[in-house]
Amino acid sequence: MGGRCSSSPDTLRIYSRDYWPLALLKEVKGEELPLPIAVAWPESLEEVVKLVKLCNEYRVPFVPYAGGSGVIGATICERCLVIDVKRMNKVIHLSEEDSYVLVESGIMLRKLEEFLNGRGFTLRHFPQSYPEAAIGGLIATKSVGQYSTKYGGIEDLLIDLEAVAPDGGVIPLRRNIVPRASTGPEIKSLLLGSEGQLGIITKAALKVFKIPPFDYKNSFAFKSFEDALMAVKEIVQSGLTPAVARVYDEDDSSVRFGDGRDLLILILEEYSKPLLEAKVSEIGRIISRYGGREAGEDYVEKWLEKRFDVISELKKLVVPMGLWFETIETAATWSNLIKIHSKFKEIKKVRGVYAVLAHASHFYEVGACLYFTLTYEADEKVYWDIWREAMRVVLENGGTISHHHGIGLLRREWIFSEIGPSLDYLRRIKSALDPRKLSNPGKFLG
Amino acid sequence: MGGRCSSSPDTLRIYSRDYWPLALLKEVKGEELPLPIAVAWPESLEEVVKLVKLCNEYRVPFVPYAGGSGVIGATICERCLVIDVKRMNKVIHLSEEDSYVLVESGIMLRKLEEFLNGRGFTLRHFPQSYPEAAIGGLIATKSVGQYSTKYGGIEDLLIDLEAVAPDGGVIPLRRNIVPRASTGPEIKSLLLGSEGQLGIITKAALKVFKIPPFDYKNSFAFKSFEDALMAVKEIVQSGLTPAVARVYDEDDSSVRFGDGRDLLILILEEYSKPLLEAKVSEIGRIISRYGGREAGEDYVEKWLEKRFDVISELKKLVVPMGLWFETIETAATWSNLIKIHSKFKEIKKVRGVYAVLAHASHFYEVGACLYFTLTYEADEKVYWDIWREAMRVVLENGGTISHHHGIGLLRREWIFSEIGPSLDYLRRIKSALDPRKLSNPGKFLG
Repeated sequence: MGGRCSSSPDTLRIYSRDYWPLALLKEVKGEELPLPIAVAWPESLEEVVKLVKLCNEYRVPFVPYAGGSGVIGATICERCLVIDVKRMNKVIHLSEEDSYVLVESGIMLRKLEEFLNGRGFTLRHFPQSYPEAAIGGLIATKSVGQYSTKYGGIEDLLIDLEAVAPDGGVIPLRRNIVPRASTGPEIKSLLLGSEGQLGIITKAALKVFKIPPFDYKNSFAFKSFEDALMAVKEIVQSGLTPAVARVYDEDDSSVRFGDGRDLLILILEEYSKPLLEAKVSEIGRIISRYGGREAGEDYVEKWLEKRFDVISELKKLVVPMGLWFETIETAATWSNLIKIHSKFKEIKKVRGVYAVLAHASHFYEVGACLYFTLTYEADEKVYWDIWREAMRVVLENGGTISHHHGIGLLRREWIFSEIGPSLDYLRRIKSALDPRKLSNPGKFLG
Repeated sequence: MGGRCSSSPDTLRIYSRDYWPLALLKEVKGEELPLPIAVAWPESLEEVVKLVKLCNEYRVPFVPYAGGSGVIGATICERCLVIDVKRMNKVIHLSEEDSYVLVESGIMLRKLEEFLNGRGFTLRHFPQSYPEAAIGGLIATKSVGQYSTKYGGIEDLLIDLEAVAPDGGVIPLRRNIVPRASTGPEIKSLLLGSEGQLGIITKAALKVFKIPPFDYKNSFAFKSFEDALMAVKEIVQSGLTPAVARVYDEDDSSVRFGDGRDLLILILEEYSKPLLEAKVSEIGRIISRYGGREAGEDYVEKWLEKRFDVISELKKLVVPMGLWFETIETAATWSNLIKIHSKFKEIKKVRGVYAVLAHASHFYEVGACLYFTLTYEADEKVYWDIWREAMRVVLENGGTISHHHGIGLLRREWIFSEIGPSLDYLRRIKSALDPRKLSNPGKFLG
């Protein structure tokens, strides 16, 4: 490994947190965060295998790391060896003919997207963490991007992966890259959302798309949040799937666009102009039927401009006021969205909470994701009061505790309420694959 | 369980095979097939739990069963208790508002589809086994249907499931039915393709669609199989996704349609007429560019008429001649399809082989499924000669050993060549969940 290992205090401090707002708050307040014991930067599969085998030999827990852009504290791992795959960042193979790319897991999403764009392709995966996330972390978190309504979540882009199991063995790529196979249960599906607890993802084969040459952008104002949602429901269920649809409630619209109406931001992307035109006209009809009125392209441009930078924008606004921020996402079927939205908004009444903004931003045939942005007194007790109330509201009203941020240290307390005894079976699987409990211990798999 | 259990010789014989052509051949030749020890027909989750716990107590292996329409011998399980969930066949809940249905796993696909059709909905899942398959089996096999290009495989329809683990514990539904969640690895993804080796699926929540009111059917003749495939590639990659696309090579076209050209069968389905028209016109342009010529709707109607009955049609033709039949499916990325097609066709030269027909029938952005139908001398040695050669051809030329039929007893020998050491990790998972090796033993998980 040469000098590609460090345990300097500065390095350990950098790796002591991800973007979990509570960890950031503690850092700002000067509180100590638990530190790893060292950081290693392997450059190949073989080096990852060697590190993991050493960890097994000496019973050293380890945690995989790449972009560090998670928001749930999943990479916080006291006295662990951080195995940062950031230097494993090669594009191994782009097949333009077959529309897929094989990469090392440490490649930054932005770098990969730029590489693809230079060749006329795109991954079309744009989470808010786009500037800082790496591919391995996106898979381990089960990420979705802002264009997911059309292009799917990371699970829909992922064709195959390679990983180093917790015991140092290799879970290899399938012999051939194929579009689909029925060859037994997919062990690789377990790596999706594994958050470092089932080994280290080292390679990924992902679908890519030709950059769509035609698009349409517009925004619409509705009389209510519900009307806007029902319009999008009909749009999606009619196969008119937009690339981006975002429905902001009045509070969220006010803060982001200075327009206190329920706004729908819409982007369509197609490969043929007549198809785009047909969709735009059908969508226009549906939106009118639900009382939507055109509000212009400016809001879309404004969103496009700031879409990866919401947190720092927020921080600029709230931190000087002694406030702090959090984002909480859930998903539910259509019939539960309005109920969750209105009950969740009542969290405004929790002592210390300043604002609760909401939008819906990833749509499916059966429902959507609701995404809440909260500001509150910069205080840990207020923080956990909010979370307890939020998780109660989503669980009791048809939601999931997480649509795409994951569990990490943050949501450990609530996962059993959602998946029940499935958790026990997952823990048995964890024990079978990681008998020494070394791969990111202390999280929800134990 | 009352009288809902039997070990009569007639019953055992019925449950001694699925639709694996080799098992059918043995039966026809009067050879003995391995028999189960008994068959039980539970009517509830509780009864399945009780049966599986009894099996654990008395160390009796068991195998889940429903439609019995598999083609790989996955349900053949000597001296096992067959747990047939066919009487667990209720539609528990259809949410018209949220477009999903919750069913017991023993419901027949055809019954479910008819139930949904009566309410304006459809599952749009039409495997060839449609008349006889049950939902649980389709999940355990990782099925795809003829409309998969637009609506996806069973994995894309599946929202959630309930199962009885091999130890008799329950893997429950998620607390709420949600469109997506990032709450750790999905243990349920392991049940997809599990072929009875990881427990018994008892319930499933599945997406449903409103019946699309507009469709377009046509067929086209091409100068070559490759031209037809490349046309479909461009159609799919341009987001013009048809519901059905089937490309038949000359031999397959001759037998099925009496037309010796490379034929493309196309069905589009949409919810709006202008959208359908826009797609049809774009698709027409692409097809012309690849030299395709309209061949009329009759071929589509002919296919629609016989699409669930190909095997019995074949049997009528081949059995009287002392021949037998087999179907072998693979999938590959676009650049490998032609190579696999031409090398696979050389299996005609294997001694005893009479015909090798081929079509491509499930399309993805990155590639497609190739489906081969073979006739050959009704002899077991010829049968295995074909399979050895077929698996060599697909593995060496970029394919998978199975696109949607699965492994069963048939493909055990080749799974390691495709997934390598992933198989060892899957076996560890199997041991963790089924320490007594009771859930469909003797298959690829051991």
